[in-house]
Amino acid sequence: MLAEIITIGDEILIGQIVDTNSAWMAGQLNDIGIRIKQISSISDDREHILTAISEAAGRVDIILITGGLGPTKDDITKKTLAEYFNVKLVENKEALDNVLNIFSRYNRPMLEVNKLQAQVPENCEVILNKNGTAPGMWFNVKGKIYISMPGVPHEMMYMMEDGVIPKLKSSLKLPIIIHKTILTIGEGESYLAERIADIEDSLPSFIKLAYLPKLGQVRLRLSAYGEDEALLRNKVNEFSTKIVERIGNVVAAEEDITIEKVILNYMAENNLTLSVAESCTGGYISHLITQHAGSSKVFFGGAISYSYELKESILGVKKETLAKFGAVSEETATEMVKGALHNFKSDYALAVTGIAGPDGGTVDKPVGTVWIAVASANKTVVKKLTFGNKRRQNIERSAVSALNMLNTLLHNSGK
Amino acid sequence: MLAEIITIGDEILIGQIVDTNSAWMAGQLNDIGIRIKQISSISDDREHILTAISEAAGRVDIILITGGLGPTKDDITKKTLAEYFNVKLVENKEALDNVLNIFSRYNRPMLEVNKLQAQVPENCEVILNKNGTAPGMWFNVKGKIYISMPGVPHEMMYMMEDGVIPKLKSSLKLPIIIHKTILTIGEGESYLAERIADIEDSLPSFIKLAYLPKLGQVRLRLSAYGEDEALLRNKVNEFSTKIVERIGNVVAAEEDITIEKVILNYMAENNLTLSVAESCTGGYISHLITQHAGSSKVFFGGAISYSYELKESILGVKKETLAKFGAVSEETATEMVKGALHNFKSDYALAVTGIAGPDGGTVDKPVGTVWIAVASANKTVVKKLTFGNKRRQNIERSAVSALNMLNTLLHNSGK
Repeated sequence: MLAEIITIGDEILIGQIVDTNSAWMAGQLNDIGIRIKQISSISDDREHILTAISEAAGRVDIILITGGLGPTKDDITKKTLAEYFNVKLVENKEALDNVLNIFSRYNRPMLEVNKLQAQVPENCEVILNKNGTAPGMWFNVKGKIYISMPGVPHEMMYMMEDGVIPKLKSSLKLPIIIHKTILTIGEGESYLAERIADIEDSLPSFIKLAYLPKLGQVRLRLSAYGEDEALLRNKVNEFSTKIVERIGNVVAAEEDITIEKVILNYMAENNLTLSVAESCTGGYISHLITQHAGSSKVFFGGAISYSYELKESILGVKKETLAKFGAVSEETATEMVKGALHNFKSDYALAVTGIAGPDGGTVDKPVGTVWIAVASANKTVVKKLTFGNKRRQNIERSAVSALNMLNTLLHNSGK
Repeated sequence: MLAEIITIGDEILIGQIVDTNSAWMAGQLNDIGIRIKQISSISDDREHILTAISEAAGRVDIILITGGLGPTKDDITKKTLAEYFNVKLVENKEALDNVLNIFSRYNRPMLEVNKLQAQVPENCEVILNKNGTAPGMWFNVKGKIYISMPGVPHEMMYMMEDGVIPKLKSSLKLPIIIHKTILTIGEGESYLAERIADIEDSLPSFIKLAYLPKLGQVRLRLSAYGEDEALLRNKVNEFSTKIVERIGNVVAAEEDITIEKVILNYMAENNLTLSVAESCTGGYISHLITQHAGSSKVFFGGAISYSYELKESILGVKKETLAKFGAVSEETATEMVKGALHNFKSDYALAVTGIAGPDGGTVDKPVGTVWIAVASANKTVVKKLTFGNKRRQNIERSAVSALNMLNTLLHNSGK
């Protein structure tokens, strides 16, 4: 079963926001066996919306549309859908009750435009929006399903989970898609491909292998499509096992998880604890870790020591070290990581100090110079890395490098 | 001048990664007066690629394609482009030199597949990829420009900045697009729309107004399209001034910046400093702040006090407070923010403590309960917020709420 996602609104097209909705929706749909043929972002222009919906309906059976359902004049999705289906807009009692409820909950006066939000094309079924006033809409026309939802992420997400996904599952006979991902660290895409070329050549036609490289990591993803779940799962596991046997030395995980989640899982299983001392990464590593449920079992927290003073006061970096070697140095990184271990009393710690840029570089230490230290009670590893001049990338690459180093240390320093 | 962006690769379609490239590219293109008609993500399937390129070429004059240029077998963009243009693949000297350079720089043996990366369709001009082995390609066929780039963000970004954007500017006569954004906080989309309805009705046809709501903020964006830059700028400013005069009480910024950047700008101008004490937001607020260049002028850093122990040792929260009221309480939030102010010696501080979920909730304090405190030497404001049960959203909404509160405090507590 194939679907397309259409996102309506100029904000993506002018680069003001990143489309996070579509990836999330695609993940949810893949999980229930619906493959996404295409994701399109289009402007809130009547003609463009009509064309995009009709093109999608020519390719797939399920069309999911987000955006353009607000109460203001630039939101034209609803009336354009009514035009597409050649039906009238009518007030829907369920949708109106929801609008009234929301306004009474927040104790604010309702405006005429909000009442208009309860109007929907007469051929739709309303999907309740418990977090907002714009109703979701479900159309079943000539064997195709059209679903329209608001673009506000938390409104769309609840609507998908509570309404759309269960309804799709109950109304369709869905095929099976099995994905299996292997996370590798420290070897390039082409080397990996060469090492497993014969395995790749022997894959049956219903299994695809993709290489997804990112910042020193390559994900290998096997995807199997078919009807027989047990068979697909067996075949995917068989080939995944072959690949892992071949390149085991660079495999960090045999599931689709991030490196920080690999670390959290390992540390939780082994009752190990972690703290951090972040300078140039400014909290990003901690954020990566703490976005995962259950991270508090492993993660104590730490210091964001952006200033010299905080490096001294929270982490105990010596004033002389900072004066003699500078904040971005092997010595400071080492004292930071030892300070974190000692002051925060964790089993492991990591520290990052560098020049994220765009300012602050010197001839000796250009923008992109980063020192990373990881440590346990009996081992400390410090490394200098040199990245480019893009601040956000330097932050991200520093974080991933630090996590990769920590993962290596965990497996090399015993439990 | 209109363009479309086509992203090739299954990883977006299965929800494994978010397409951040397209928004960034769209922003760059808009800046030089190229409007984006559509952004499409498609699978690395020969037929689908051919259809998508030909559909886009039917709508616009510039087609930018990313992805599918790696050395492995799942990357078929290049040969599909050769098929589309009905030309052969030939080895390109410039591209080969670049591959050789990169391998010698990293001192790794070159593989046959990497040498194949220097092959390009014979009708293209190569765009140098200084960060990778896959060359960019520029095609000028029948009055339309086709550009193919790798999907790896930092490779694509350098290629856009150094190659594509300058080349587009020099080879096209580009029209003008002027955007002006007003950031508002604390008033809903429909209330704002009602307050400025008459201004919106009086906009000339070449100016569009869009409402972009997100987490307690609404961005109002005026976009003007035309030839005469001075006229467009004057008209946009005239209407933006009218809007700001009308709704000035909720306006946080008259440019397209985030709330943390509003705060950083204000604090830098007024020589004010900031530190944080983050519990449930786990470093996310610090990350939002430190992603901005120049944040070190204002931001000292702070504590990520995930554990009870760190709340006590770094921030000086009293053991009795934690025991009596719990970590998620008005009292703990207040002691955290005062601890940050005192220990880190900043002019302002903010503290967040809550239950991000999905576990850890109780009847009294369900998942989504968050206490936020912001403080200066002479004023402390503490607030309880209640969100839903989605961990990442709770983190994001807590962060934005804390920043909104800090912004309000900054403007209410004198300088």
